[in-house]
Amino acid sequence: MRLAGFLLDGAARTFRHRGAFSKLLVVLAASGGGGIVAYADARTDAAAESAQIASKKKVVVLGTGWAGTTFLKNLDSSLYDVQVISPRNYFAFTPLLPSVTCGTVEPRSIVEPVRRIIRKKDGQIKFWEAECFKIDPDTKKLHCRTNIGTNLEGNGEFIVDYDYLVITVGARASTFNTPGVVEHCHFLKEVEDAQKIRRSVIDCFERAILPDIDEEERKRILHFVIVGAGPTGVEFAAELHDFFSEDLAKLYPTVKDLVNITVIGHAEHILTMFDKRISTFAEQKFQRDGIELKTGFKVVKVSDKTLTMQNEIHQQFSVPYGMAVWSTGIGAHPFILEFMKQIGQGNRRALATNEWLRVRECADVYAIGDCATIAQSKVMDDILEIFRFADKDNSGNLTMKEIEDVLEDICVRYPQVELYLKSKHMSDIVDLIKASKDADKMESEGINIEEFKIALANVDSQVKSLPATAQVAAQQGIYLARCFNKRKDREENPEGPQRIKEAGRHHFLPFRYKHFGQFAPLGGEQTAAELPGDWISIGHSTQWLWYSVYASKQVSWRTRTLVMSDWARRFVFGRDSCRI
Amino acid sequence: MRLAGFLLDGAARTFRHRGAFSKLLVVLAASGGGGIVAYADARTDAAAESAQIASKKKVVVLGTGWAGTTFLKNLDSSLYDVQVISPRNYFAFTPLLPSVTCGTVEPRSIVEPVRRIIRKKDGQIKFWEAECFKIDPDTKKLHCRTNIGTNLEGNGEFIVDYDYLVITVGARASTFNTPGVVEHCHFLKEVEDAQKIRRSVIDCFERAILPDIDEEERKRILHFVIVGAGPTGVEFAAELHDFFSEDLAKLYPTVKDLVNITVIGHAEHILTMFDKRISTFAEQKFQRDGIELKTGFKVVKVSDKTLTMQNEIHQQFSVPYGMAVWSTGIGAHPFILEFMKQIGQGNRRALATNEWLRVRECADVYAIGDCATIAQSKVMDDILEIFRFADKDNSGNLTMKEIEDVLEDICVRYPQVELYLKSKHMSDIVDLIKASKDADKMESEGINIEEFKIALANVDSQVKSLPATAQVAAQQGIYLARCFNKRKDREENPEGPQRIKEAGRHHFLPFRYKHFGQFAPLGGEQTAAELPGDWISIGHSTQWLWYSVYASKQVSWRTRTLVMSDWARRFVFGRDSCRI
Repeated sequence: MRLAGFLLDGAARTFRHRGAFSKLLVVLAASGGGGIVAYADARTDAAAESAQIASKKKVVVLGTGWAGTTFLKNLDSSLYDVQVISPRNYFAFTPLLPSVTCGTVEPRSIVEPVRRIIRKKDGQIKFWEAECFKIDPDTKKLHCRTNIGTNLEGNGEFIVDYDYLVITVGARASTFNTPGVVEHCHFLKEVEDAQKIRRSVIDCFERAILPDIDEEERKRILHFVIVGAGPTGVEFAAELHDFFSEDLAKLYPTVKDLVNITVIGHAEHILTMFDKRISTFAEQKFQRDGIELKTGFKVVKVSDKTLTMQNEIHQQFSVPYGMAVWSTGIGAHPFILEFMKQIGQGNRRALATNEWLRVRECADVYAIGDCATIAQSKVMDDILEIFRFADKDNSGNLTMKEIEDVLEDICVRYPQVELYLKSKHMSDIVDLIKASKDADKMESEGINIEEFKIALANVDSQVKSLPATAQVAAQQGIYLARCFNKRKDREENPEGPQRIKEAGRHHFLPFRYKHFGQFAPLGGEQTAAELPGDWISIGHSTQWLWYSVYASKQVSWRTRTLVMSDWARRFVFGRDSCRI
Repeated sequence: MRLAGFLLDGAARTFRHRGAFSKLLVVLAASGGGGIVAYADARTDAAAESAQIASKKKVVVLGTGWAGTTFLKNLDSSLYDVQVISPRNYFAFTPLLPSVTCGTVEPRSIVEPVRRIIRKKDGQIKFWEAECFKIDPDTKKLHCRTNIGTNLEGNGEFIVDYDYLVITVGARASTFNTPGVVEHCHFLKEVEDAQKIRRSVIDCFERAILPDIDEEERKRILHFVIVGAGPTGVEFAAELHDFFSEDLAKLYPTVKDLVNITVIGHAEHILTMFDKRISTFAEQKFQRDGIELKTGFKVVKVSDKTLTMQNEIHQQFSVPYGMAVWSTGIGAHPFILEFMKQIGQGNRRALATNEWLRVRECADVYAIGDCATIAQSKVMDDILEIFRFADKDNSGNLTMKEIEDVLEDICVRYPQVELYLKSKHMSDIVDLIKASKDADKMESEGINIEEFKIALANVDSQVKSLPATAQVAAQQGIYLARCFNKRKDREENPEGPQRIKEAGRHHFLPFRYKHFGQFAPLGGEQTAAELPGDWISIGHSTQWLWYSVYASKQVSWRTRTLVMSDWARRFVFGRDSCRI
């Protein structure tokens, strides 16, 4: 049905755009059989389409994670010739990856084929399962390589041109060059990682229960170590504990007393990005569950059977382990690092973009999601321009009126100003200036550049980089798609703030992240949550909130149904322990 | 709950069997804390159990397929010390493997952990995920090796003793030494094979749609070849065609006209083990679906991009292909071949057992399922003994009475007699003898050995080996478990026929296979079925019969629910095309 619709649609477009071809089609239809008509139809369709596409700008999207998929879903694909390149032909709902490691949710329930997502765009978006290995911003070319098999003609490489490039390739795990991590630790970034961890957990139990092994060795094999006490590490530890206590203990009764789970974190507490109450609750819950916490420790070496760590007090010491998961730190992909060198960002860890998500010093290239950070302009870097911009009468002094006139533009352009005021419980920038200069004096003589500098000296302390979360990536995807959709409109009717350094307005408002809260599942059907408005919620009811939020956030009805039925299945039958 | 129950059970057994230990337990309970009690409990429990086990015979089961699992489910495990060794810690419902290749059913829905199956036996059965690599029937020892990881102390090898050994390791794919098959073809024996095929199908589509590939190459990549026109090959071809036409054609519209599926079979028709009507219907359906049939062809060589075949008329010729699945022929595992050499069965293809499923010339070793064949004793081999056995008065002539007296025993011992009579539309052996000798003469003078030989000369033509199906394996498992359960009983009260060569009766009736029919799913919601009583049923209604039979045959309520929800999911959302 849909195929037929697609072809009819194609034929209709042919009539609209290519009179000559459509006549040919009619002639052939009169003289030839059905097969020939279909052939001619396809030909003219393709010709018409390519002519139409030729006039459109080429947008190439690298990656199909949160940022890329949200961008594609929100993009008006009729405006551009859109091509998507990613080594994964699916989108994965990564917040459920820890659940996949223990079989609470099946891997296939959290993935959706990219082609199904882009099909909703009338087939105008092309997708290629390949890896970009080199970006050439000078010629606007991408060098790609398919990662499928080896028997493709040649070496499977091809080149793609772009007019606009949107980089959404995410990050990869970073080992901070700790020796042995790559060889011996699991990561938890991809669906395949979660599947490997699941098999590995079962392997440990099957291995530990074999005959002819001494108690010490069984204990070693059943020591599960998680390096990283952030949300992923903590959630994985909680899942593992549930998997063990709810399911595996019944199946492996003879070794059930030998299991140990240890979470190693660099900071003094776990879940430091959460409110202190959550972090404390989590620590107490883990203690009750018998999960050992080694906070304030740094892992310095990993060998096949031992893991070496140290803290400020202790010298290095080693613990034997059976399985280790490394869930701390992210870094850029090698080809992104290479690209960063090319564009003079060689000393950074992620692609720096401006506040509109365009890569700095690089025309027509955008970067969103974990592969990018917004390099927020500093007020103190631009202080002279800001002063000149506000000083409309060029008097060398800013009056209250002058400041108030540009206040909104500055707050939009430099969001740290607002954050700083909030942190000082002030209502606007005038309060800030008044705090550093006598109000009466200010009223009469205004403020000069030096006094202005002093007043704003600390605002940049509020510049914060955004966390590498799905929430940020998704919001960036939506924002950028809107910018692409309204590009023409906003060139004529800009909506952004006044430019500080040049004349005119910015076309768009800069990207602003809105934090909707975050969850920390802690196992045993308990979850902690930070909700908007500094609300904290912990316990069983929050777990149900978690279920409903995660179900509603699924990318399609298919995955939503599957994830919910997985949860139901787990309630009824438990998790399964098959090693596949 | 179950764990507590298990421990209480253990403690109760302690009281029953070990008075001294139970006193110790009470003393410790009075003086120590809860922890110590638990410890003592576990200790005495283990001691009591090992004492109890010492008196039991050790039954070791190799393999957890249809035969092994059915055996375990039906075995009274309180009578033996049972140990199970298998490289897979799960049972797989193999008849649904072709459905897994295309995502109609998920791999996890057709597997059930062995530990969950044996847990229902009160934890008396031990399971070890390991591979047996050598059987030593002289010392009754099995040499095993764990296949998990490499960092187990030593080389991961251990030795297991047995009193009775039950071999249920199944078969592996046989390539008939065709060059290139192992390197380039997929097999379809294990769950992992099905998962690989699924990824590979998606790979072919993703590869074929890439830019910079010419039409010819796209066609090659999308040519799917299935070698083997038996039930598995045909069902896989049908699944593949459905997957393509119902799901992939919508997602890969630009290459949908380039797909080709070819089934290559050695025989003149496909599905030769089915009734001719089914085979013809299947051929016609495949023709309508555009699946090419190359019957009467033999594949002689496979390279990475071409497959060479020949038939009686044509010389060798090659076809380019993108993916090939080899689903023809099975052979024994290497360690079984080695064992066969040891016991003088080196020239056979599978372990030969007697009619009671015991391996011939090997005490206390049984073999069931695809790894074994029943070497049915031939009437003509035993003809002298049969004659002597029937000739009670040693007259050298058999009277009608004498024949009738032993008729039942002979028919039970040599089922081919009954089959032969049936094929000749005769009601009993007397008819057969009458056919070769005048009835009156027979009545008066009886029949001598030469005449007896002539009468029975052709009955052995009805000796047929059983097919390598789940149905056979499961029936053998049930049969053998019953024999193990009633071993003691039947030693005293044998139920089997009179021994022909020795005195006394056989303890058990020999194994008899009962064929309940078989299905051949042909795609497009159509299935053909051979049902008991020579019934043939083809079409959509048979597909629903197939659904209900396969759902009811599931090994647990978990897999039953999962398989049915997978079918429902496929109806609603289609199959998914994520490459994971």
